[in-house]
Amino acid sequence: MLKIGILNGPNLNTLGKRDQHIYGSLTLNEINQKICEFVEKEKIELIFVQSNSEGEIIDTIQKWSSLIDGMVINPAAYSHYSHAIADALRDFSKPVIEVHLSNIFSRDEFRQKSVTAPVCNGQITGLGYYGYILAIDGLNTLIGQTNKDQ
Amino acid sequence: MLKIGILNGPNLNTLGKRDQHIYGSLTLNEINQKICEFVEKEKIELIFVQSNSEGEIIDTIQKWSSLIDGMVINPAAYSHYSHAIADALRDFSKPVIEVHLSNIFSRDEFRQKSVTAPVCNGQITGLGYYGYILAIDGLNTLIGQTNKDQ
Amino acid sequence: MLKIGILNGPNLNTLGKRDQHIYGSLTLNEINQKICEFVEKEKIELIFVQSNSEGEIIDTIQKWSSLIDGMVINPAAYSHYSHAIADALRDFSKPVIEVHLSNIFSRDEFRQKSVTAPVCNGQITGLGYYGYILAIDGLNTLIGQTNKDQ
Amino acid sequence: MLKIGILNGPNLNTLGKRDQHIYGSLTLNEINQKICEFVEKEKIELIFVQSNSEGEIIDTIQKWSSLIDGMVINPAAYSHYSHAIADALRDFSKPVIEVHLSNIFSRDEFRQKSVTAPVCNGQITGLGYYGYILAIDGLNTLIGQTNKDQ
Amino acid sequence: MLKIGILNGPNLNTLGKRDQHIYGSLTLNEINQKICEFVEKEKIELIFVQSNSEGEIIDTIQKWSSLIDGMVINPAAYSHYSHAIADALRDFSKPVIEVHLSNIFSRDEFRQKSVTAPVCNGQITGLGYYGYILAIDGLNTLIGQTNKDQ
Amino acid sequence: MLKIGILNGPNLNTLGKRDQHIYGSLTLNEINQKICEFVEKEKIELIFVQSNSEGEIIDTIQKWSSLIDGMVINPAAYSHYSHAIADALRDFSKPVIEVHLSNIFSRDEFRQKSVTAPVCNGQITGLGYYGYILAIDGLNTLIGQTNKDQ
Amino acid sequence: MLKIGILNGPNLNTLGKRDQHIYGSLTLNEINQKICEFVEKEKIELIFVQSNSEGEIIDTIQKWSSLIDGMVINPAAYSHYSHAIADALRDFSKPVIEVHLSNIFSRDEFRQKSVTAPVCNGQITGLGYYGYILAIDGLNTLIGQTNKDQ
Amino acid sequence: MLKIGILNGPNLNTLGKRDQHIYGSLTLNEINQKICEFVEKEKIELIFVQSNSEGEIIDTIQKWSSLIDGMVINPAAYSHYSHAIADALRDFSKPVIEVHLSNIFSRDEFRQKSVTAPVCNGQITGLGYYGYILAIDGLNTLIGQTNKDQ
Amino acid sequence: MLKIGILNGPNLNTLGKRDQHIYGSLTLNEINQKICEFVEKEKIELIFVQSNSEGEIIDTIQKWSSLIDGMVINPAAYSHYSHAIADALRDFSKPVIEVHLSNIFSRDEFRQKSVTAPVCNGQITGLGYYGYILAIDGLNTLIGQTNKDQ
Amino acid sequence: MLKIGILNGPNLNTLGKRDQHIYGSLTLNEINQKICEFVEKEKIELIFVQSNSEGEIIDTIQKWSSLIDGMVINPAAYSHYSHAIADALRDFSKPVIEVHLSNIFSRDEFRQKSVTAPVCNGQITGLGYYGYILAIDGLNTLIGQTNKDQ
Amino acid sequence: MLKIGILNGPNLNTLGKRDQHIYGSLTLNEINQKICEFVEKEKIELIFVQSNSEGEIIDTIQKWSSLIDGMVINPAAYSHYSHAIADALRDFSKPVIEVHLSNIFSRDEFRQKSVTAPVCNGQITGLGYYGYILAIDGLNTLIGQTNKDQ
Amino acid sequence: MLKIGILNGPNLNTLGKRDQHIYGSLTLNEINQKICEFVEKEKIELIFVQSNSEGEIIDTIQKWSSLIDGMVINPAAYSHYSHAIADALRDFSKPVIEVHLSNIFSRDEFRQKSVTAPVCNGQITGLGYYGYILAIDGLNTLIGQTNKDQ
Repeated sequence: MLKIGILNGPNLNTLGKRDQHIYGSLTLNEINQKICEFVEKEKIELIFVQSNSEGEIIDTIQKWSSLIDGMVINPAAYSHYSHAIADALRDFSKPVIEVHLSNIFSRDEFRQKSVTAPVCNGQITGLGYYGYILAIDGLNTLIGQTNKDQ
Repeated sequence: MLKIGILNGPNLNTLGKRDQHIYGSLTLNEINQKICEFVEKEKIELIFVQSNSEGEIIDTIQKWSSLIDGMVINPAAYSHYSHAIADALRDFSKPVIEVHLSNIFSRDEFRQKSVTAPVCNGQITGLGYYGYILAIDGLNTLIGQTNKDQ
Repeated sequence: MLKIGILNGPNLNTLGKRDQHIYGSLTLNEINQKICEFVEKEKIELIFVQSNSEGEIIDTIQKWSSLIDGMVINPAAYSHYSHAIADALRDFSKPVIEVHLSNIFSRDEFRQKSVTAPVCNGQITGLGYYGYILAIDGLNTLIGQTNKDQ
Repeated sequence: MLKIGILNGPNLNTLGKRDQHIYGSLTLNEINQKICEFVEKEKIELIFVQSNSEGEIIDTIQKWSSLIDGMVINPAAYSHYSHAIADALRDFSKPVIEVHLSNIFSRDEFRQKSVTAPVCNGQITGLGYYGYILAIDGLNTLIGQTNKDQ
Repeated sequence: MLKIGILNGPNLNTLGKRDQHIYGSLTLNEINQKICEFVEKEKIELIFVQSNSEGEIIDTIQKWSSLIDGMVINPAAYSHYSHAIADALRDFSKPVIEVHLSNIFSRDEFRQKSVTAPVCNGQITGLGYYGYILAIDGLNTLIGQTNKDQ
Repeated sequence: MLKIGILNGPNLNTLGKRDQHIYGSLTLNEINQKICEFVEKEKIELIFVQSNSEGEIIDTIQKWSSLIDGMVINPAAYSHYSHAIADALRDFSKPVIEVHLSNIFSRDEFRQKSVTAPVCNGQITGLGYYGYILAIDGLNTLIGQTNKDQ
Repeated sequence: MLKIGILNGPNLNTLGKRDQHIYGSLTLNEINQKICEFVEKEKIELIFVQSNSEGEIIDTIQKWSSLIDGMVINPAAYSHYSHAIADALRDFSKPVIEVHLSNIFSRDEFRQKSVTAPVCNGQITGLGYYGYILAIDGLNTLIGQTNKDQ
Repeated sequence: MLKIGILNGPNLNTLGKRDQHIYGSLTLNEINQKICEFVEKEKIELIFVQSNSEGEIIDTIQKWSSLIDGMVINPAAYSHYSHAIADALRDFSKPVIEVHLSNIFSRDEFRQKSVTAPVCNGQITGLGYYGYILAIDGLNTLIGQTNKDQ
Repeated sequence: MLKIGILNGPNLNTLGKRDQHIYGSLTLNEINQKICEFVEKEKIELIFVQSNSEGEIIDTIQKWSSLIDGMVINPAAYSHYSHAIADALRDFSKPVIEVHLSNIFSRDEFRQKSVTAPVCNGQITGLGYYGYILAIDGLNTLIGQTNKDQ
Repeated sequence: MLKIGILNGPNLNTLGKRDQHIYGSLTLNEINQKICEFVEKEKIELIFVQSNSEGEIIDTIQKWSSLIDGMVINPAAYSHYSHAIADALRDFSKPVIEVHLSNIFSRDEFRQKSVTAPVCNGQITGLGYYGYILAIDGLNTLIGQTNKDQ
Repeated sequence: MLKIGILNGPNLNTLGKRDQHIYGSLTLNEINQKICEFVEKEKIELIFVQSNSEGEIIDTIQKWSSLIDGMVINPAAYSHYSHAIADALRDFSKPVIEVHLSNIFSRDEFRQKSVTAPVCNGQITGLGYYGYILAIDGLNTLIGQTNKDQ
Repeated sequence: MLKIGILNGPNLNTLGKRDQHIYGSLTLNEINQKICEFVEKEKIELIFVQSNSEGEIIDTIQKWSSLIDGMVINPAAYSHYSHAIADALRDFSKPVIEVHLSNIFSRDEFRQKSVTAPVCNGQITGLGYYGYILAIDGLNTLIGQTNKDQ
């Protein structure tokens, strides 16, 4: 049975309270619930981690390296400057898809540069919570392939 | 019954012959075939257009404005400089998702700037032909919402 | 009798449907109608061309080279990157005035750089459809001079 | 009866002596004379001010705020760096059109950036003294509209 | 009774030992003591937190969201690159004033760009420990207003 | 008895009429009135100057050099480019605090660069008219110190 | 017998009328005639295409992929921004040499950046129509080698 | 008898009080005195003007246009951004030499860009008050030539 | 007996598993073992800390301030953006040498900018694990000198 | 009989040993031999100079000014920064063609900027040793024209 | 017996007279003496070359290519712009370590970019003359490996 | 008796033949002759060196360090990139004035950046050969002062 990790970065634990026009009205728990419902029919085991700490996010990526088959990561603001998280992802040998709830390309200038995207397999942005579900669907396909090749 | 347009830009008509390490081994027809199979169970009508011409791509977007319910667009190289296509998309009132076969963020510098992404609802990159299928799945959800709000 | 060409670029054929706060509520036909009314008293013959295609715009400029006495051009989004249209205008030996409906200087950053303006005689921006009428008035004066001297 | 202010910035008082290839051979008085002739048939009252001083230009804009119905401004070199004049124009509640005698886009690099244009309603460049006349014509139309909306 | 949080970022726990020409000779405890003395007469309750960890600073901002009426933050070096802290402040619904002990504008280039200042209500720099006291005074006024409006 | 100068730059004489969402609803006279009330209890003599002219502002700073004990300056738009005012402040030997009514860091890009801030002792932004009062309070403390040390 | 395509981009159809100081006095037909004369002795079959349209240029490159043994391309202004043509050339498996009539390095800044040159085998500039002849001579040598290796 | 104008810009009236390590210990009057002594033997009439106001400097340049045979200008801080003064100098038909007391190239970054130098005949920097004397000596030679040719 | 701290930053705990072409095949423990062997003959006591957390790295530097005589730091990815770690190092009064296993100058662009190197005494890069041993050798010499003098 | 100089810059004396994938397998002597063979039938006298020294290259260009009829120069790495060689070429009154063995546009960023190309008549890149032969052929044509006209 | 070359660039022959705060008080001969003492015990033969000439430095690198087993190079100022020396080093097949006496990262901006470092195996900076000794020690290790692999 | 060195850089040995509109019509010998005539009355001994070689220029500066009392240097093109010459000048303990014949500020962009000017005492530009004479005059004054203080 496939094992997929869902790793959420800083301030995503306050979803529901953040600007709803940008991030939607669901809390992180409600999003996770929706992901679980979707995954049920797919026979996938999920692990959820959220952290505001760059170091803990790196720790998690390292720990997951031998535990899971693929990762969905939303590094939130860290996407735009954390070369340390990017290095951790570069060393991670399983497929990874980066997700952003909002369309980062139509927001602040700094959000249009992602230092983590180049070391992921792909990126899904602007589709709200449904982006996580599409990412799991996409990971499913990628895991069918033996190695990432970027 | 939902109607979705799949609009492919320059050089995507030669898929299968292009660098397969980057773009995969399927031809555009084979990709379209796979999309059709997926869509069959979803009761969606598809229209496929591919063009190497910026002007024709704009013509198509304008024509589709009153014909379809949502669009998947892969503007290929035009993504990076065609403000004219971006203007056409900005005027397009239905949901649009931009797709790229490869992870544009791990390739040439110029591919990391998209002038069309900010006027789409979302973007899916790096997941090969499967990105189109995820995009249609995502459009399906977005069309349930009345208006795009970027 | 003076012959003036009015050349409109990409997405201007959808005026009236585009964001009316920026572009006004008139369709391109209605604008052309208003121009005709103004010109009637001036004894000027007008030719109208609109195209979404960069190549067709260049073809038109080349063809008009020996046909008309002056040109009003609104290259729309192509203003900001089409060095090919700029080259065609550079070779065009009659007066040319660039027109933009909106005040491009108070919009997106990319709209503040025009590659076509340096090879026109002048530019009129931000005055809506009335800019075309002022441009024809201005061309009238310029044509009285024998050669453009930029 | 409409009241329009014509505000000319630094070095425009020496027109006629400045490089005539760029600025034409008319003195500022001769230009103002031509503007008056044009305006006579239009029933518009004109006020002319020229100053080399940034502070006086700001003083004039503030004073005119309650005196006139629209302004034609040629801030000359101040266009390219006077955020203070731009702030004064931003606070000015009537229509304003920026005029430049020469085609600033085909001259020095620094002349292609205008900090005042974004807070005017429109801009007319490259049409010599006739630009002022077109600007008054344009203001006439704009004043018909109640408020500027940029 | 008003409740205000004082949140100090990395290396501020070593004040007194750091370059005294830049940061002054008081330790953080001595500064906090001085703030308490000032506040006593104002009937304000204070909470003090200092952390070197970006994640803990975000945790604190989130936790304080429902606990306090206003915040004084000195994000120290994080001011210049922590978009994650900026996002947390953006979501924080009470008034916030950023304080820097030194005049950051007369020091290293990188210190002149603050990514957190745009999401605070105001900033006070260069006034040493007294900046905290002015900030509390300023918060007092701002809290009188119902919502921040930037 | 302490003597402090309050020097306001371009367009601040029109406060009350300027965009109230940004600058507040008080006129400059009303602000000065409030400052006077505050200062009364502090035994400070105030001098108020406002000018739209860069040259007059420099003249004032030079004249005040031997007249006052400290200065509050709001150079408004001149903050962002007047190296001449910055040079005058650099030569001024008493404490100076720069004040801005609005949070300049959350507005136009050009407003985020101040050429005068590096030569002041400190800066207070975003706190409306109350910023002047805090600045006088801060100056009081600084004047207690013999020399500025930036 | 070797088959070589000569592909000319926008505005090259008006050679002879364009600025002769830069482009020489020959028309495109006269240049093609001279190329034919040279090639006669070399037993090479030539195909000539000129187009102002980016899309048609891409179409031609794709069509030629299986028809010719080598290409001389003068993308004119498109050299400087058409990533779409560059992508088509990148997919083209036979030798390609880029030619420019003028010395693009001593003209406008924008002409010094070529996005198509990196995906050609070589570039010949500044030698007028004779550059085409040298390019064919060079292609002859390159075709002797089995694959391009950039 | 030759007539030369010495035009000093902002803050140069406070020489002697400004940072003496950079500007030397002489007051402007003392410098002017030294210049007069030198000039005595050369049969040159001198006019001295100093102003902190950009507008007055422009007024002076315009007025001097028909009065003097050459100018020494130290635009001080205005050198680095006053395109308006540069325009006035561009229109001035007699030789002009720009002087700076200090070596502007070894000071702040912004002081290394002069917008007025390109429109002067030459520049002398870093030689203290003696630079004015060398400049008058140099002007003497230049005036022997009929026209400046930059 | 000399006491030296070896502080390793993010992702260095996974050495041996990371790209061995870049980082070599030894684990961090094996590297530490080799360092210990070298140091044995030198009579130096070593402390080893590795952390993925920016905050913990700062905590360690502060704590070590009074405990050790010199530090070897490999801040890994944090080298390129952690101004907070740089501030901590700036406050650290003993010699520090920055080490990188790989030649950071021949890798990604972002790795060529180090914000921590300017506040260290020196830097050793590209010599694999042996760089740590050279750094300890170098520290030995530096500690002989009383104070760092950058 | 025509006299042509072949001037090769730094590191070209080690051809054959340098990276053969980029520079080919021939030594400089073998290339010169091939050039001689080609030239034999053309009745051209050749002079060959190679130097690693910028100064010697300038000396050679100056000496050749009155000795030869045209020059082929491969300034190698000096192309990218030697304004001194560029100045020497600018003063050289005979035709010059710059040659590069490799396609400099598909290599390092710094190789895409040539400071010498703008002062040559033309440039030939990417065609290996054959580029020298094409350059001599091209020079032959250019020398037929009396003066270079860039 | 191992043979190592020590190549010093411009102005290093005047060590001892240069700014001692930056470069130390030893002359180059004294440094070389210290290196010899160290090396004695290591059974390494040393060759010392110093030159102010870019061309001679390249000549030396080429000559050493078949003579020595490894090189320590301090290209001094040439590090920051000599692509010609960098090309010579790129062609050099033995290990090379770049040394700088001072910490170049805490000095002028231009010293922080090294064009030679990317083609060396490693770099040692800021450790004074001792850096040469560490570099020889490091080379010793690298030479044990067969080929450099950057 | 004072001893002054006149050091001329690349291509200045060909004065008289170089573009006379920019550099004047005198040869270097004629200029030197004129300098000698001027100096005769001043009791100054002159040494003249010209070299096209960066290394020789550095050698000369070093050799002159103990031989002369001041230097006039025209580093020509090397001014704009030779950090090695700049380093030599930085170590030179006597006054140095940089001279340029032409007004480098009104020519190519790259000529407006001088890396040698910051380490000279002053700079004189745009005054043709007379600049050398003014420079010697200026040096005379500077040598009266004991040490340069930049």
